[in-house]
Parts: sequence; C-alpha cells; structure tokens
Amino acid sequence: MRFVLDALGSDNCPDPEVQAAVTAAAEFNDHILLVGPEDQLRLKLGSLNGASSRVQIIDAPEAITMEDKGIQLALKAKRRQAKNSMAVGIDLVKNGLADAFITAGNTGGALATAFYRLGLIKGLERPALTALFPVKGGHAVVLDIGANPDCKPEHLYQFAMMGSIYAQKVLSIKNPRLGLLSNGEETGKGNQLIRETSPLLESSGLNFIGNVEGKELFGGQVDVVVMDGFTGNILLKSSEAVAKLLLDTLREELMSSMRTKVGAALAKPAFGTIRKMLDPAEVGAAPLLGVDGLVFIGHGHSDAYALVSAVRVARQAVGAGLLGAIRDAIEEQLVSLPEPQES
Amino acid sequence: MRFVLDALGSDNCPDPEVQAAVTAAAEFNDHILLVGPEDQLRLKLGSLNGASSRVQIIDAPEAITMEDKGIQLALKAKRRQAKNSMAVGIDLVKNGLADAFITAGNTGGALATAFYRLGLIKGLERPALTALFPVKGGHAVVLDIGANPDCKPEHLYQFAMMGSIYAQKVLSIKNPRLGLLSNGEETGKGNQLIRETSPLLESSGLNFIGNVEGKELFGGQVDVVVMDGFTGNILLKSSEAVAKLLLDTLREELMSSMRTKVGAALAKPAFGTIRKMLDPAEVGAAPLLGVDGLVFIGHGHSDAYALVSAVRVARQAVGAGLLGAIRDAIEEQLVSLPEPQES
Repeated sequence: MRFVLDALGSDNCPDPEVQAAVTAAAEFNDHILLVGPEDQLRLKLGSLNGASSRVQIIDAPEAITMEDKGIQLALKAKRRQAKNSMAVGIDLVKNGLADAFITAGNTGGALATAFYRLGLIKGLERPALTALFPVKGGHAVVLDIGANPDCKPEHLYQFAMMGSIYAQKVLSIKNPRLGLLSNGEETGKGNQLIRETSPLLESSGLNFIGNVEGKELFGGQVDVVVMDGFTGNILLKSSEAVAKLLLDTLREELMSSMRTKVGAALAKPAFGTIRKMLDPAEVGAAPLLGVDGLVFIGHGHSDAYALVSAVRVARQAVGAGLLGAIRDAIEEQLVSLPEPQES
Repeated sequence: MRFVLDALGSDNCPDPEVQAAVTAAAEFNDHILLVGPEDQLRLKLGSLNGASSRVQIIDAPEAITMEDKGIQLALKAKRRQAKNSMAVGIDLVKNGLADAFITAGNTGGALATAFYRLGLIKGLERPALTALFPVKGGHAVVLDIGANPDCKPEHLYQFAMMGSIYAQKVLSIKNPRLGLLSNGEETGKGNQLIRETSPLLESSGLNFIGNVEGKELFGGQVDVVVMDGFTGNILLKSSEAVAKLLLDTLREELMSSMRTKVGAALAKPAFGTIRKMLDPAEVGAAPLLGVDGLVFIGHGHSDAYALVSAVRVARQAVGAGLLGAIRDAIEEQLVSLPEPQES
C-alpha cells in the first residue's frame, strides 16, 4: 500500500512526520510518500537512521497553515496549480498514485482541499468530519463534528450509513449500534431535525437503537452517534474542556499539600490510564467521510507515535475496502430510499 | 419573606424537604410553606426538634412524579382544580401569598406548571431553563438547557437579557460577560441561528463578548452563555457524562492495586474538592426564567443541605428584585428593539 503523509501538518512539523514515515515504512512494509519542501525533508530524512527506499519525498514548497481561513483557504484548496502539501498530497490520491492521505494539519483546510479536489462520492450530499470519542470500555464513532453547521435529515441519514460502515470495516464491530444524539431518549423528543431524522433511521436497516444522550455515548452503550456539525463541534469541544477543567483542578489540588503530593506520586499509574484514555495519539486519526478518496485527519499535537497510529488506521481502511463499501451503500440507498419529499 | 417548598420534589422526599424547611426558617428568619400531604408532613414535622411556627403546612395530596410525561403531565399542570404539590404551590406565588416556589422535582413538570399557571412575563416569547455550570474559578449561568428545542434569534436575545440580569442581581456580578455558544469564535461561524443572533446581541447594550466555545465556558472566561434548548440540554448532559466517565475510570484505576489505593487515601482531600465542585447541592437550585413569578428548580438528588441552599438562592433573588428587573428590561426592549423582520 502507498500512503501520503502531509509533512507540513502537525504543530511541530516536519520532524514528527519524517520520523513517522521512516517508522511506518519499516513497521508495515508500506510505501510512504512524504509531501513537503523537498530540500528540507531530504536533509531531515538523511539524518535519520533506518531511512529506507520505501519513504519517498514529493515536493510541495507551500503549506496550508492554521492561520488560513475563508476565501484564502478556499483558494489554496481549489487552485489547480496549488503547490501546498495538502493539494499536492490529495492529488496523488486522486490520480491513483496513493491509497490514502494523512495529515495532522488544519482540519478545515483538509476538508476544503479534499472536497474541491476529490469531490464527493456519487449520490452523497455532504462530507462529514468524524472523531473517535473515548468512552467506557473503548471508543465511539461520532459524526459530524463540524463540516456542516446546518443539516437536513437526509444528511444525518447518510452520516449514519457512513459511520456504521466505518465502525464495521475499520473498527471491526460486527453490527454497530447506531444512536441519534438528542435531548431525551423518547421518540418525539428532540428538535425538528431530530424528529424528522428518527423515522428515517428507524426504517434504514441500520442497527438503530434510538435517540441517545451523553450518558449512553460516554457510557459505551452505542458504537456510532450522528448529529449535525454544529452540535457535534460543541459536543467535542465541550467534552475536551470539561476533561481539562477536571484534570487541571485535580492537579492543582494534589499539589496543594505534602500529603496529597505523596498520594499523587503513589497514585500515578492510575492517572497514566486516564491520560492515555484522553490522548488523541491513541486513535491516531479519524476519517473525513463522504469525499471520493480516503483522507485521515489527526490532532495538531500529533507526535511520531500518533502519526504511525494514523497510518495504521488508514491501512486498516484500505485493507477493508472502506471507500468501495461506502460507494456501494450510497448507490444502493439511491435506489431504495424514498424521495426526500415523501419522507 | 415567604417561600413555598415542594415537599414532594426530591428523590427521597419528603424527609429532606421537612428538614430543610425547619433549618431554613431558623437560619433565615423566613416563612416556609411546605406543600404536600398534610397528615404525613405534620407527623414528620412533629418528630423534628426545632420546628417553629414559621414552617406552615399547605395540603396537597397529589404529586407530579418523574413518570409524568406528555399530555398526562400537561393536564396535571394545567387543570384549575389540580391538587398536586406543584400546582398548589405555584398558585400560592401567583396569588401573592408567597415570594417564590422551590422544587427538586420533575423539571418538565415545574416548567409546565409554571407556564400554565403563572404565564409568561408580558412581552416575553419563551421561558428558559437555567443551570449554573461549575467552571474554573466559579460558576457560569447557562440557558436554555431544555425548555425550547427549537429557537429563533429573538428568543436567544431574550435569554441573554434574562441571564445577564440574573447574574447581576443574584450572583452579584457587576457587568456580566455574555457569550453565545458556537462552533468557533469568529463572527460568521455558527449555524444559521447563531449567525442571525450574533448581530442582535452585538447591538443589544449587553456586555456581549462574542461567540464562545467550551474552553471559554469551562475556563471561566464568560459569566452568561446562551444557546437553544436542544444544544443546552446536550451540553449539560454530555458534560455530566464526561465528568462521570473520568471519575469512574479514575476510581477503578485507583482501586486496582495496593500502591494506588494508598495513594488515593492520601490524596483524598483533593478528590473532595472535585466532588464539591461537581455537586449540584452547592448551587442549590437554578431559576426558571421568563415565567411571571419566581420558580427555582433543584436537582432530584437534593438533600436538606441542597434545599436550604436553594432557599438561599431564592431569597437573594427576591431581595434583589429579580422579577421586577426582568419585567422592566423586557418592557424597555419592546420599545427599543427593532422589529424582528428588519433585524
């Protein structure tokens, strides 16, 4: 398999990316195409032991940074001659020269670049940003976490389909339990979007367990949870903020007396488990679903370890035929789904 | 002052309510009207030391329970001759016989009963359920947390006004910083509701600091945060679920070895601070804003301590003239706000 790794993605790029390329090529016996400024990358790569011929550098002198927004970002993403690492990297996937693109850079940038250059899977109306949330006993697939602030029921229906296929193919969950995030579990609860989406999911053939709340999501009672991108983004960022508040407060309190300091030192292994549970590096990257090619987005803080995990996730997706499975499902849906007006 | 306490509210009612009535009457030198089944309450009250003439029992043989939903709940809330403790208690406020109603019972029940029996403040379109979120360094006023799953910009505008007045009058924050919860802080971000509400708030004369995310809310950088009731309910329940997941996991890990057990025992004071921070009893109760009377809703788990805190919050609101201040602000807004069509 051949993976494109954006060398200008992570906060500390390109060092983690160069290291990850070397490690992943060795560990998986795959080809890694490292996209970024050729001279700089060649120098970095040369200084690393174990660099193999399976790591190839593709020149891209420019970058999409965290500062790129709005029209400027759209131009960088769209322009045919664009020389930034995301555009060059995603074109490799588009042209069949690689199986998947992986970046730890600007999420909006990856979304826009993939959308303009790969297009959407035929029959799909919106792409969805996905996250793997740490929950009791494992992870849950959550989407959309920000691509579409305003959604229609049919969009959520397609997110549900794609998320379920992802859970099946990549996370190896046989019959993933699907939930619709709502304010209350009873049918009939929810805002207008939820009340219109529930019946679509009930007649979908997916393993829809109904409307769910935070306790089912974080309690590990559901494998895939769908929502509009506004709600999903607030859910994601608020959950991170709550965890940070709790752990920061606990840390301060533990450091406030000698007794609690000693206690904290002894209890350290327990805190390590929590840290690992909340560490995005453990999941590596989450897919951008709906675009016509495999794109994985990792956290900006990603180190080499996280990026190798990201390659691992991407190769699982390639090996399981994720893209083909989604294409087939959408095509089938186009045949079987009642017209939106009638639903 | 005179407060109505719903004796059939909390999960363990009526014991915590009876105890709280006696304690609050003694501590605040106020009158407490305890509403519930007279014979049972008289017996309980008689067995307590220190019961004073300032605790008065008002008979209400029936209850609105957590099982009451939909039409059944609406009937219990609405019927003129209703004999349940919420209806009887709220009528006391309506008829000027008490200054505020306090319950730890069914939130939807309190909302419906207050809505039908007190009506809305003139000029107000929707009531809002409020919560005090624990944040870095204190609390933030969050609304709406569930009364209105679908909102219009004018509703959020009115929530912002009421929340700011509450923060000023009851929490004694001079110039409360107001935020609009969104997916991204830049103006122009957000779903359609947010994009239409931002300009209303910007020209409102309130201390609007802009769109905020979870990190500003939980980081203590904002005093009042508004949102529609669907988003607010998901925010509330997800935050609770994240905190529970973290603390449950930490507890499990701490109990998994002798070393961490000893560490946990030494670190206990630090965990106590976290527990206190997350304990709804510390804030006592949050107001239902917008109905034409003071109604406070506490957590179902409330004990006597929490209910006394609830009375304390209610008397602060009465003393500060909360209801009059909201009435005045809404009246003023009706004169000054541009027509919704034009905004």
